Amino acid sequence: MSGSTFGRLFRVTNFGESHGPAIGCVIDGCPPGLPLAAEDLQPDLDRRKPGTSRHVTQRRESDRVEILSGVFRGEATGTPIALLIRNEDQRSSDYDSLVDTFRPGHADYTYWRKYGRRDPRGGGRSSARLTAPMVAAGAVAKKWLRLQYGTVIRGCLQQLGPIEIPFVSWDEAESNAFFAPDASIVPQLEAQMDALRRSGDSCGARLRVCASGMPVGLGDPLYDKLDADIAYAMMGINAVKGVEIGAGFGAVVQLGSEHGDELLPQGFGSNHAGGVLGGISTGQDLEVSIAIKPTSSIRLPRRSINARNEAVTVATHGRHDPCVGIRATPIAEAMLALVLVDHALIDRAQNGDVRLDTPPIPAHP
Amino acid sequence: MSGSTFGRLFRVTNFGESHGPAIGCVIDGCPPGLPLAAEDLQPDLDRRKPGTSRHVTQRRESDRVEILSGVFRGEATGTPIALLIRNEDQRSSDYDSLVDTFRPGHADYTYWRKYGRRDPRGGGRSSARLTAPMVAAGAVAKKWLRLQYGTVIRGCLQQLGPIEIPFVSWDEAESNAFFAPDASIVPQLEAQMDALRRSGDSCGARLRVCASGMPVGLGDPLYDKLDADIAYAMMGINAVKGVEIGAGFGAVVQLGSEHGDELLPQGFGSNHAGGVLGGISTGQDLEVSIAIKPTSSIRLPRRSINARNEAVTVATHGRHDPCVGIRATPIAEAMLALVLVDHALIDRAQNGDVRLDTPPIPAHP
Amino acid sequence: MSGSTFGRLFRVTNFGESHGPAIGCVIDGCPPGLPLAAEDLQPDLDRRKPGTSRHVTQRRESDRVEILSGVFRGEATGTPIALLIRNEDQRSSDYDSLVDTFRPGHADYTYWRKYGRRDPRGGGRSSARLTAPMVAAGAVAKKWLRLQYGTVIRGCLQQLGPIEIPFVSWDEAESNAFFAPDASIVPQLEAQMDALRRSGDSCGARLRVCASGMPVGLGDPLYDKLDADIAYAMMGINAVKGVEIGAGFGAVVQLGSEHGDELLPQGFGSNHAGGVLGGISTGQDLEVSIAIKPTSSIRLPRRSINARNEAVTVATHGRHDPCVGIRATPIAEAMLALVLVDHALIDRAQNGDVRLDTPPIPAHP
Amino acid sequence: MSGSTFGRLFRVTNFGESHGPAIGCVIDGCPPGLPLAAEDLQPDLDRRKPGTSRHVTQRRESDRVEILSGVFRGEATGTPIALLIRNEDQRSSDYDSLVDTFRPGHADYTYWRKYGRRDPRGGGRSSARLTAPMVAAGAVAKKWLRLQYGTVIRGCLQQLGPIEIPFVSWDEAESNAFFAPDASIVPQLEAQMDALRRSGDSCGARLRVCASGMPVGLGDPLYDKLDADIAYAMMGINAVKGVEIGAGFGAVVQLGSEHGDELLPQGFGSNHAGGVLGGISTGQDLEVSIAIKPTSSIRLPRRSINARNEAVTVATHGRHDPCVGIRATPIAEAMLALVLVDHALIDRAQNGDVRLDTPPIPAHP
Repeated sequence: MSGSTFGRLFRVTNFGESHGPAIGCVIDGCPPGLPLAAEDLQPDLDRRKPGTSRHVTQRRESDRVEILSGVFRGEATGTPIALLIRNEDQRSSDYDSLVDTFRPGHADYTYWRKYGRRDPRGGGRSSARLTAPMVAAGAVAKKWLRLQYGTVIRGCLQQLGPIEIPFVSWDEAESNAFFAPDASIVPQLEAQMDALRRSGDSCGARLRVCASGMPVGLGDPLYDKLDADIAYAMMGINAVKGVEIGAGFGAVVQLGSEHGDELLPQGFGSNHAGGVLGGISTGQDLEVSIAIKPTSSIRLPRRSINARNEAVTVATHGRHDPCVGIRATPIAEAMLALVLVDHALIDRAQNGDVRLDTPPIPAHP
Repeated sequence: MSGSTFGRLFRVTNFGESHGPAIGCVIDGCPPGLPLAAEDLQPDLDRRKPGTSRHVTQRRESDRVEILSGVFRGEATGTPIALLIRNEDQRSSDYDSLVDTFRPGHADYTYWRKYGRRDPRGGGRSSARLTAPMVAAGAVAKKWLRLQYGTVIRGCLQQLGPIEIPFVSWDEAESNAFFAPDASIVPQLEAQMDALRRSGDSCGARLRVCASGMPVGLGDPLYDKLDADIAYAMMGINAVKGVEIGAGFGAVVQLGSEHGDELLPQGFGSNHAGGVLGGISTGQDLEVSIAIKPTSSIRLPRRSINARNEAVTVATHGRHDPCVGIRATPIAEAMLALVLVDHALIDRAQNGDVRLDTPPIPAHP
Repeated sequence: MSGSTFGRLFRVTNFGESHGPAIGCVIDGCPPGLPLAAEDLQPDLDRRKPGTSRHVTQRRESDRVEILSGVFRGEATGTPIALLIRNEDQRSSDYDSLVDTFRPGHADYTYWRKYGRRDPRGGGRSSARLTAPMVAAGAVAKKWLRLQYGTVIRGCLQQLGPIEIPFVSWDEAESNAFFAPDASIVPQLEAQMDALRRSGDSCGARLRVCASGMPVGLGDPLYDKLDADIAYAMMGINAVKGVEIGAGFGAVVQLGSEHGDELLPQGFGSNHAGGVLGGISTGQDLEVSIAIKPTSSIRLPRRSINARNEAVTVATHGRHDPCVGIRATPIAEAMLALVLVDHALIDRAQNGDVRLDTPPIPAHP
Repeated sequence: MSGSTFGRLFRVTNFGESHGPAIGCVIDGCPPGLPLAAEDLQPDLDRRKPGTSRHVTQRRESDRVEILSGVFRGEATGTPIALLIRNEDQRSSDYDSLVDTFRPGHADYTYWRKYGRRDPRGGGRSSARLTAPMVAAGAVAKKWLRLQYGTVIRGCLQQLGPIEIPFVSWDEAESNAFFAPDASIVPQLEAQMDALRRSGDSCGARLRVCASGMPVGLGDPLYDKLDADIAYAMMGINAVKGVEIGAGFGAVVQLGSEHGDELLPQGFGSNHAGGVLGGISTGQDLEVSIAIKPTSSIRLPRRSINARNEAVTVATHGRHDPCVGIRATPIAEAMLALVLVDHALIDRAQNGDVRLDTPPIPAHP
């Protein structure tokens, strides 16, 4: 895992800027024989893409992915799979006024100081648009995990600003553009979004991502722990400020007798660990929760500086999501899938010969 | 960053088990010329080591570190620095009954299923003892950061079980064995620990780690973001279940107009970002918060299984901390230091020629 | 350096197959500010491309490279530079008879056994066509090295089958399609090629690559030695079977008093080391020599097997170079450039603060 | 593979200097269950160690290796295996006169310019002594390869200065301190060494290393080719100046019809490829040949400079091998073993599910 490449054996190298000619990625290390076509990647890209409802950015991108290599006659060949997505709707003029100005809460300032220059159009490299190739790569990972282990990865919105969303079912989460697992709350969420849009402000969100049907034994005991790599992957998603595994920050006020999940022959007694013990998967559901900060691009005027350290006022009028968390569900799912496939390959490299007489205990009693 | 090696340019390879002959690490990539002696590493090792108060494990380890290589006439030479710490107090018999039994909340089960075998003595590789080499390596990183940029890394206890600890000063945090930044609360913390010990239970904790005097521009825009690598480093510490940067989960209920830190010529208006924007350091204080689960080894009996999937009861009578969070402060500081020195080297590799006319704005107005 | 990614800080991820829609690469870690346009890459691509003379494959590819990202207003921004080359002349039908048959000397058999499948069109991933993105990436590296240090990388043909070619000048090497540093020998080389084409056979070659204007101090003392990474890079070029640094295999019969290059205040007394001592560059010219095997695709019938282990006869009638060595010069230059830029960045990461009072001695007395 | 760490999944991190307290390495990623004890490593260490005959350095080192971690009850546990070798015979005073002087042919000058300082005792990090941990790690790799695939790795001396040594048998190579595969030539070799010692000079050597019983399918098609990684490993051994696979430089004058090994149902018709096609192992014997330069430390006076660029004369009177190639055989075997085990693990990570109906053809007809 280095620079713009994610993963050690299942490696995804991401490229592109928001307003350049194209974005994409190269997936290296995919096991050969995986049935694969662009149609496998499109559904998740469609779940992520802008313009799906009036509550997300109205930028129009078809986000059609082209497979340039690594697939022959409908199967992965084992060689690098290059994915290309052309940028279509590049209203660069929206950003003309920003060339020299740093938007609060954005990467503008840090980027400029690091590289001495930046591509101001749409956040350039720091744009959420770059999550599209992550989602496409994640779809490849998801498919392999499902075929190999029956592992299924799903995500949903847990909280939108102050509104906590009860969990009804994964199916409900897929029934609305908010990925809210309780569809009945959607009118309330829409009202919240409308209010934000009127006021020119934005809000944060909390998401849950879960992998069920997990193999036991993924992860290293030190440093490359499964939960450490998940934290890396999640915190690497744009706007994420916090990551929890299992009980997360709730564990601070738990007693040991409450937190420690009992093991029973018929299955684990609880899942406060969130599916990881000592950095290694238990076979229980992997439970991850992330905090997403409010969108930085807002219409309300903010104080800032320009490249000459002079005071300026910034108000952003581009097409932005009042809550970036809404579209983040497929992204978080994708990143979790990428971590899991990488660890699955690493684990079988080292431990492919390990045989035990007793089967793993069930995830649930 | 792979397996037991942490970092890409400043690389620390950790080895050893709790009850083997020795533990240690190899630091590769340290800039030459850094003044270095075992005395530089000992203070942090002493802050971490067991037996410092009656509230932590009474295992007696002197944790004396020996520098085996990479230092000549008091300076790092640029070649690998090998650090060795001999294990002294190895009461392996404490663990005889556990060879075949999996302690709830421990890595015993996952470890055994992954490798088909395990070293049951003291948690083997999963023992918190393996954080000693991390702390030693972190002391090298801390020294380099301080000499190079004036960066100072400090940590403290924010919460012990239900008890929230006000922040008075960093000096107070160093005045007591709890690293509590308000010394007046120590009697309350001691009462909490005594109660836990009596009941045979344990509790969780929340820690804060902070780097001040930060250089601007550390971190990559995608994947290897500074905050992503911090999340990886922190979640990789034993018992950590959650990581926050800046406002963290609090950002969920913030408005964009509140969260986005304004930039003023005289300095940043606030620090909800926690010192990172778009994965790159802003020069503000790096603010990290972590959740530590309650110690899994408790005296209270718990239900579990053995290697034949048979039901058993486990009660742990070894010498364990009722709250592992107490000793975790120097560990979290060390891991943060390791992330920062690695990113500092990576940044100057790529951007060593970048020159700007205007200086960075101050961290604080 | 892993899988299809070359380099640690200046990383090139290669993708594509000979007969897929496109080939290309992603360059991650390029220092920002490097002036860059497609025109910088095209000259080396043109030196490598097929169809430049009647002595190389007549496959017609324009090899026009498109920069998809990482360049803004004529400068590298510091983010991934994606390069795309569309495949144009894909006569896949030439390969229909080979789907099930393994050509001797080719990767067909090993590839199929490794992955359980293969893309038989033009060697798929193993095609020399995949050296085009290497050459494009190498052109970026060359430009940076030249601007940063004045380092110049050149290559030439030393031997074509039995014909040894005297070194007259680098300029002569650029005056003919063979990269022969003695233009007067070209008629002899052409006769050799014509004879091979008539007989349906092929021959090997020996190449020299040289970097002059070298910085001192690139390379690590162990494992990641500069010469080790050069050997890796060169042996990784299609058809290469041997690599020498400096005196190479000639060192076997040298005495120590002859081989060891004396250091004089006015410069090195000789360069048997080839510019590397103890894995670290001396500042002398880097001298590398490589052996290239004869083209495996020949018209003469050979015995082989098919996927059912049955005996077959194979004769290759596609458009192939009778000596792949002829077009390998720009490829070898590119790979050397990639090694050097990577080591230059790694060196300044660790040793950016090293200052010495005395200047390096000259490369030549 | 980065810095002092060799390998991607089976990773060996080397540390230590010639005259520090200890040298050693950490092996990370070893498959669990491998039966392992110090006795498995000692035979190869003894084959490499100084003082075995009057023709090699008389420095006295017992080279006893201590296993510090990663082995429990005689088996590798899957966690890092730390190996420690204490330095015993450290006559540092031999080097006092060299603190400020650069020996021709040595790393002294490059090392000093890179790091701005160096440990002059015995070459410090650049000493051949650091090959001892490589040999120890290689012994672990050898054992795993033998038990897993029946792969056997052997080496021998092919040429000592001008004396070419016929190959009689691998057994003969183990019968003498020169690793000469024709024992009858030993008196001639001894005479050569005696003459060199009298004249105060040194000579080069050529070695052969061979892996038989090879699995098919190890290696990647691009960049991380098996032969590329072998070249990296071999060129990384102290004093190596050239590497060949199979026909090597001999391929330059071969015709394609001669070089390309025919595939027959009963086995390969020849092995000019040296066991690798397209970067992937064929199952034939891996054939590697390396050139070793003459020892740089000689008694004959040479011209050189000191740290102030002043002219000096250097004559080395320490205890040095007149031909370092003599002791290099077990080192080259070890490095080949490390490459193979790493590629074996990488291959089964990606291709562990590949199944073919036909068996590989035999290595030999």
